[in-house]
Amino acid sequence: MEFSSKLLENAVYEMSQLPGIGKRTALRLVLHLLKQPKEQTSRLADALVGLKNKVKFCKSCHNISDTELCEICSNPRRDESIVCVVEDIRDVMAIENTSQFKGLYHVLGGKISPMEGVGPQDLTIKPLVDKAKEGKIKELVFALSSTMEGDTTNFYIYKQLEDLDIKTSTIARGIAVGDELEYADEVTLGRSILNRIPFENSLKA
Amino acid sequence: MEFSSKLLENAVYEMSQLPGIGKRTALRLVLHLLKQPKEQTSRLADALVGLKNKVKFCKSCHNISDTELCEICSNPRRDESIVCVVEDIRDVMAIENTSQFKGLYHVLGGKISPMEGVGPQDLTIKPLVDKAKEGKIKELVFALSSTMEGDTTNFYIYKQLEDLDIKTSTIARGIAVGDELEYADEVTLGRSILNRIPFENSLKA
Ligand SMILES: [Zn+2]
Ligand SMILES: [Zn+2]
Repeated sequence: MEFSSKLLENAVYEMSQLPGIGKRTALRLVLHLLKQPKEQTSRLADALVGLKNKVKFCKSCHNISDTELCEICSNPRRDESIVCVVEDIRDVMAIENTSQFKGLYHVLGGKISPMEGVGPQDLTIKPLVDKAKEGKIKELVFALSSTMEGDTTNFYIYKQLEDLDIKTSTIARGIAVGDELEYADEVTLGRSILNRIPFENSLKA
Repeated sequence: MEFSSKLLENAVYEMSQLPGIGKRTALRLVLHLLKQPKEQTSRLADALVGLKNKVKFCKSCHNISDTELCEICSNPRRDESIVCVVEDIRDVMAIENTSQFKGLYHVLGGKISPMEGVGPQDLTIKPLVDKAKEGKIKELVFALSSTMEGDTTNFYIYKQLEDLDIKTSTIARGIAVGDELEYADEVTLGRSILNRIPFENSLKA
């Protein structure tokens, strides 16, 4: 792509550094901003820089939070004895959205992935184990993605907690509610048969 | 979407103001930036604000340019007697990319669209007509999109130039090179039959 302006080229280049944004899309976005009032660009720039400079993470669950302790951790009606372990804050949002979970969360910040050079020390695993040792947690629910990295991470944390009297569980995998069996992938279908639940329990949901 | 932080919510909101970027995508982009070194966010913010504040448009063709006269307009090897009229700078880039056009451009900045409240005075039509009156232009090539707005814009400019001795043409519409006839839409196919060209001419491309 040949640009008629270095300023334009630079803006398109920086925009195209975002994941899933190619050069063409970046150019479209930048030209859109050029047509809008100057304030829109400053608001976007200020919002991104402001977040990056001032972002805080809840000292207990490591979710993004504007306060030292996030709204969930500081809510006395949440059950602190059950903690759901997730990869990132989008998982917290997704689970909160279901209104089905009344415990607390722990945001790991990723999964153990030797391929991508992510080790246990890059995640918030030690704070989780320290928290577990305080004795308030009765159950940890692993809600990581069911990939090799997710399984490795679950197992690593599980081993760290072996000597503690903490129940561990993982969220159920199975055919999505409303989905046809014939379209399900075989691994999911297989797991959903192996992990079948008493019929009475299925009536609760 | 419930956010755990106002700063995060604000950044996602501003990002989602860009065309084609929904809330989910905006969240993914913002969380990506949060994981990158701080410099990436500042570079993006600076590039966007810098472009918006310092952007200049070529005083002759109205393309984005870092200099008063853009590289194309100031290139003595370009043919100033033939001017290609386009909607926006992406069209200049697309045509330059073909290396088939040796004239100059004129960037209108859009199309006349009563529906979207865009009139002739919102585009660079007057500067184009003024330029035409100087007498150096022998041919105007309309390369606007073939929509009702594009056709209206072409015709409006055409009428403004009636008293001048300037040839006008539009780029050829037809079946894309390499495309199967059966997959072409009927309007394009119809036009490509009506506007058929001498076979010898097709051998040039
Ligand atoms: Zn928290
Ligand atoms: Zn120019």
